[in-house]
Amino acid sequence: MALTTSNNTTALKGIFTPNMVPLDARGQINEAEFRRYIDWLIEKGVHGLYPNGSTGEFTRFTVEERRRIIKIVCEQTAGRVPVLAGAAEANTAETIKACELYYEYGATAVAIVSPFYYKLSPDAVYAYFAEIARNSPIGVTLYNIPMFASPIDITTLRRLAEEFERVIGIKDSSGDVAQMGRMVNAVRPVRPDFVFLTGWDVVLVPMMLMGADGGTNATSGVVPELMRRLYELASAGRWDEAIPLQLRMIELFDAMLGPDFPDGFRAAVGLRGFEFGKGRQPMSDRQEVNISQLSSLLRCMMSDFGVVDAPAQGCALRPLSGAALYPQAQLAQDINRGGCCGAGDDLDRTAREVTEAVLAKLRQRGI
Amino acid sequence: MALTTSNNTTALKGIFTPNMVPLDARGQINEAEFRRYIDWLIEKGVHGLYPNGSTGEFTRFTVEERRRIIKIVCEQTAGRVPVLAGAAEANTAETIKACELYYEYGATAVAIVSPFYYKLSPDAVYAYFAEIARNSPIGVTLYNIPMFASPIDITTLRRLAEEFERVIGIKDSSGDVAQMGRMVNAVRPVRPDFVFLTGWDVVLVPMMLMGADGGTNATSGVVPELMRRLYELASAGRWDEAIPLQLRMIELFDAMLGPDFPDGFRAAVGLRGFEFGKGRQPMSDRQEVNISQLSSLLRCMMSDFGVVDAPAQGCALRPLSGAALYPQAQLAQDINRGGCCGAGDDLDRTAREVTEAVLAKLRQRGI
Amino acid sequence: MALTTSNNTTALKGIFTPNMVPLDARGQINEAEFRRYIDWLIEKGVHGLYPNGSTGEFTRFTVEERRRIIKIVCEQTAGRVPVLAGAAEANTAETIKACELYYEYGATAVAIVSPFYYKLSPDAVYAYFAEIARNSPIGVTLYNIPMFASPIDITTLRRLAEEFERVIGIKDSSGDVAQMGRMVNAVRPVRPDFVFLTGWDVVLVPMMLMGADGGTNATSGVVPELMRRLYELASAGRWDEAIPLQLRMIELFDAMLGPDFPDGFRAAVGLRGFEFGKGRQPMSDRQEVNISQLSSLLRCMMSDFGVVDAPAQGCALRPLSGAALYPQAQLAQDINRGGCCGAGDDLDRTAREVTEAVLAKLRQRGI
Amino acid sequence: MALTTSNNTTALKGIFTPNMVPLDARGQINEAEFRRYIDWLIEKGVHGLYPNGSTGEFTRFTVEERRRIIKIVCEQTAGRVPVLAGAAEANTAETIKACELYYEYGATAVAIVSPFYYKLSPDAVYAYFAEIARNSPIGVTLYNIPMFASPIDITTLRRLAEEFERVIGIKDSSGDVAQMGRMVNAVRPVRPDFVFLTGWDVVLVPMMLMGADGGTNATSGVVPELMRRLYELASAGRWDEAIPLQLRMIELFDAMLGPDFPDGFRAAVGLRGFEFGKGRQPMSDRQEVNISQLSSLLRCMMSDFGVVDAPAQGCALRPLSGAALYPQAQLAQDINRGGCCGAGDDLDRTAREVTEAVLAKLRQRGI
Repeated sequence: MALTTSNNTTALKGIFTPNMVPLDARGQINEAEFRRYIDWLIEKGVHGLYPNGSTGEFTRFTVEERRRIIKIVCEQTAGRVPVLAGAAEANTAETIKACELYYEYGATAVAIVSPFYYKLSPDAVYAYFAEIARNSPIGVTLYNIPMFASPIDITTLRRLAEEFERVIGIKDSSGDVAQMGRMVNAVRPVRPDFVFLTGWDVVLVPMMLMGADGGTNATSGVVPELMRRLYELASAGRWDEAIPLQLRMIELFDAMLGPDFPDGFRAAVGLRGFEFGKGRQPMSDRQEVNISQLSSLLRCMMSDFGVVDAPAQGCALRPLSGAALYPQAQLAQDINRGGCCGAGDDLDRTAREVTEAVLAKLRQRGI
Repeated sequence: MALTTSNNTTALKGIFTPNMVPLDARGQINEAEFRRYIDWLIEKGVHGLYPNGSTGEFTRFTVEERRRIIKIVCEQTAGRVPVLAGAAEANTAETIKACELYYEYGATAVAIVSPFYYKLSPDAVYAYFAEIARNSPIGVTLYNIPMFASPIDITTLRRLAEEFERVIGIKDSSGDVAQMGRMVNAVRPVRPDFVFLTGWDVVLVPMMLMGADGGTNATSGVVPELMRRLYELASAGRWDEAIPLQLRMIELFDAMLGPDFPDGFRAAVGLRGFEFGKGRQPMSDRQEVNISQLSSLLRCMMSDFGVVDAPAQGCALRPLSGAALYPQAQLAQDINRGGCCGAGDDLDRTAREVTEAVLAKLRQRGI
Repeated sequence: MALTTSNNTTALKGIFTPNMVPLDARGQINEAEFRRYIDWLIEKGVHGLYPNGSTGEFTRFTVEERRRIIKIVCEQTAGRVPVLAGAAEANTAETIKACELYYEYGATAVAIVSPFYYKLSPDAVYAYFAEIARNSPIGVTLYNIPMFASPIDITTLRRLAEEFERVIGIKDSSGDVAQMGRMVNAVRPVRPDFVFLTGWDVVLVPMMLMGADGGTNATSGVVPELMRRLYELASAGRWDEAIPLQLRMIELFDAMLGPDFPDGFRAAVGLRGFEFGKGRQPMSDRQEVNISQLSSLLRCMMSDFGVVDAPAQGCALRPLSGAALYPQAQLAQDINRGGCCGAGDDLDRTAREVTEAVLAKLRQRGI
Repeated sequence: MALTTSNNTTALKGIFTPNMVPLDARGQINEAEFRRYIDWLIEKGVHGLYPNGSTGEFTRFTVEERRRIIKIVCEQTAGRVPVLAGAAEANTAETIKACELYYEYGATAVAIVSPFYYKLSPDAVYAYFAEIARNSPIGVTLYNIPMFASPIDITTLRRLAEEFERVIGIKDSSGDVAQMGRMVNAVRPVRPDFVFLTGWDVVLVPMMLMGADGGTNATSGVVPELMRRLYELASAGRWDEAIPLQLRMIELFDAMLGPDFPDGFRAAVGLRGFEFGKGRQPMSDRQEVNISQLSSLLRCMMSDFGVVDAPAQGCALRPLSGAALYPQAQLAQDINRGGCCGAGDDLDRTAREVTEAVLAKLRQRGI
């Protein structure tokens, strides 16, 4: 089968937001709010959407709901940004059906998590993805998340990349930067087009330095403008400017990751003016209290970035935070200064500064 | 809601076979073979059936298939043995629906695995089961399998057992015998009726010594007669006789557990004359070869027990096996000697031995 | 070299106490108190002593101190019970030197922990023990403690047991009862004399059921009389009587294991009237407070067994405890009833009871 | 106590080689070869030496040998480069003695691994280092290596850094780049002078991007010239140039890490012309064969870098290697081009580019 335009892997670069799904009072998908949220993410500049991922709690929806989620995202996006559709179902036959359907819906590619619950051997992981790759009409991104699912090791990744053109990339949530290097070493020589995305927000910049093309980052569902900026700095090779922001993102991500995942992210997106409702996983009273306290802390952190207002009662100092290293005033200036990340911007800026310095010196000398 | 007869926890004792599901050439449930297999298990003496467990690959079936599996098991069993129905679905609402349905089908109780994929905190595990317990019309057995799902710790277990009469037992697949003791310590004083089942075949006897009421053991789907005997020896307090058989079961279980779970068990049940077909998880060529080699080894092991014929070409010696400690001849004699484990048998044997000792003493006294 | 009487492995059965070492105000070995403690342990009935084990904090003493500890234990024991001397040093040459020295001191055998710090492969573990076994003048017990040191797997154990008569046993602290079965399966057929000891107090009884010859149990340094009774019940095949006491021991062990190991055990032995002083590992203020609170709890637990007095202010109820299942009064009666566990005692007792019943019946019939 | 010149933490930047120790035919320290090796490392450009680290197998030497190793290194170095001396001994008193002695020997600072064998709580780790920090006459570098020793968490690190001026840095071998960011966030605001070194060679560049000051990298004991170049590229902010070399280093490091650590590194340094002899840990026959095969592979890898000659029989293609991405010819050119990373080189290049841009702009303006 010839590869379709869906396999345009250049589309899979940048920040892909793993969509959380707002629920209404009855625990059902709140479609109106979901569409409003999708629009907002696109307006804030994320490069793509990634529904039915781990952050999107795909396992807690029914088959029908998962389909509806992809349909809504594809419709609402309407081609403005690419859609990477999570397509893992109960077995290969069901997963292939999902691939076919999401292809019809207009998704750009699918992402399929490695088999979970059972911990499978590398051979079984290979056989699983091979079966899907042979039958999918749409490009397949492997999804490696060893803390939740069977790991995809380097040898298996290489075999799949070499044997199946339909396998177009990997989304890795291991957080292991050296492993990204190993993947690049093993795959780039045989598949220069292969896409590497990282799902571990706290190392987006080092992962991109190592060769990643972008990220599927839960944090981008909360502060899309900041994750986009982080990506653009890294993507422009402005590594030293990217790091202070990366350090700040670590603090925010760790706070959101604290409670049972992804409750902290759901609480945080509420602070951006969206009504996400209660999640599908019930909470104990103690969890409710903890989330409420976390929400206050998150408001403080996010107000430091200028994306929400600070609470009226003010914020306590946070002892283990990087805010001291990269304070609000400097951050605000960096974020808001014009022409941040266009091509050649870095050299231009230096040239402009130096030109002015040279002209000043020339003027001193009376020229 | 008053507890129904379904909550007759005395029914949940003994060996519950976690049903594997035979598939036809198209990968669909082979209902005729499944019904034949159910009959065979009951005839071979297992105390109950446990469909939609981990061995039954519940995650690899669709919602509709999982329902059909329970329906078939309940119908075919027709009350001959109790049915413990695996009822975990995508979220609490779906799981409660399954509880309601399986109650209607006539299941004795449901078993619900702790939330998986995401690794949840004890509080979240509590909230999940509490929500289900408040709404289930049928007794709920907690299913703790920390290698695959969020662990259920002792404090959480105690809270659930104390607060919810509907929570009637726990099925523990940790394999940790001390943990069984901790569970018994924590729960028995407040819930003397609470049922403890172990899913770790290699320690059935020590678990029962520690207080377990029986097991949901994959091995019983392959050699039901042997697992029943193991249970009966332990249950009769004939611990020293149970251990040689337990040691032999370790060898068999370890061999079946070797490949990707539960392929080894599927291969083994084929040797008992059932056509289980290919599993839902595709296999690589290398896996096919390995399973074929394992199958030969399993034939040898199972022929040692006299439950299948030895291969024509004979069997090699197995270096790490307990067969040397408890050889075939002795095993066959023990298994086949009449009246092995019926009620009163143990007393009979003791009575016989003691009578002889007493007669000797009486003779000494000249009576 | 011919095996010496030191290799009398029948000596290595029963409860071996892993000696903690009392320290004086300057942090030095308190020899007088140590000798008094050794005498007390022997009087309380432990079957052997095991200095320089993990509970004995061997890594926190210098080479010279480790030697002195063995010397004191051998001298003070004076042949009353066997001594299993921990002999691991920095490398094989140093360890072999220790084997030679402890042989001279009169130790019964040495115990050598698998290489630690580095996590070594099975092959390297084999090579390490093989080198020692070829050179030791005294029987070598392998010490498997996978939570702290490189694991000794079944294949490696079998190789060492088959190839080296000098390797006389294994002390396993994995706590995995099935693994004990695997070890028995693999080794007993080729080495019927091989000794299996368990270092995991909470499963002493199930381990013995599975084939262990006894234990090296830290708890026996605190309540030697209870661990001896546990051993004797199990050793007499009185499994059903052993379990209630085993369940109670779980609660005590878990409490002592709570703080940084072995601080809880050091605190507990203080309650038996020994002055152990501060340990070698410094404690933070918070740790000091925690140990002090634990000490109160331990006093309550131990007073339940009747081995120390209850605190004047009384004891709170413990929610997760097995005390409700096996209350103090029953325990006291069981422990104190005469002739508990002598050889043949079990049959004798039954015979006595039945004889009386038979005589009663005969009397009824007028004979 | 006033801080001495030993606490000049600016000295602790760059690549510190964790010294392996050559042994003679009798297994004793080969002092002559050791001194020759030290000279070679310094000549090849490493920034410092780090004897008695994990790569240096400190646990396999006696107390006396560890002292001798530090003495030799300090003497032979003779102030040419700083010495970071591993000083962990059996307990705090012995460790403090080592600190005093190594201070006298002229070491720049000590590195002390977190307590190992026992897995200690954060509080106990704090208490351990606090006791040492209060008594050491020389700057203390914490050594975090969670795969071998009790982890040092962020809160504990922050407490130690805030409370003890004598604690001057941390050497982290976790390999977790995000964790480096967390450490920087927590410590830099309160201790701008604090030193962060990474011991995980495969992420030296990303670690430095995140804020590390350098590394203690086993690879630098084998190819010091390449690790120095990697450091210098990163240290000059030439991140994009550093990555191709980092990717190549991953392949080499992974190969050397393959066997039981540090045997692969010992084999590799032999290829550089040093006679390291057999290690202290005995090898099985199979291990000997494996090391011999690895040695051939390492020769091929290292010949790609031009640091050793290729084997006469040539080298097979390596499938998972990054060599395809950064081929030998390009690497050789990059390494050998003049003035690669001397001070001012980076500035020179930028100045040249900017000057041209400025001149162009001036020309545009008609100047």
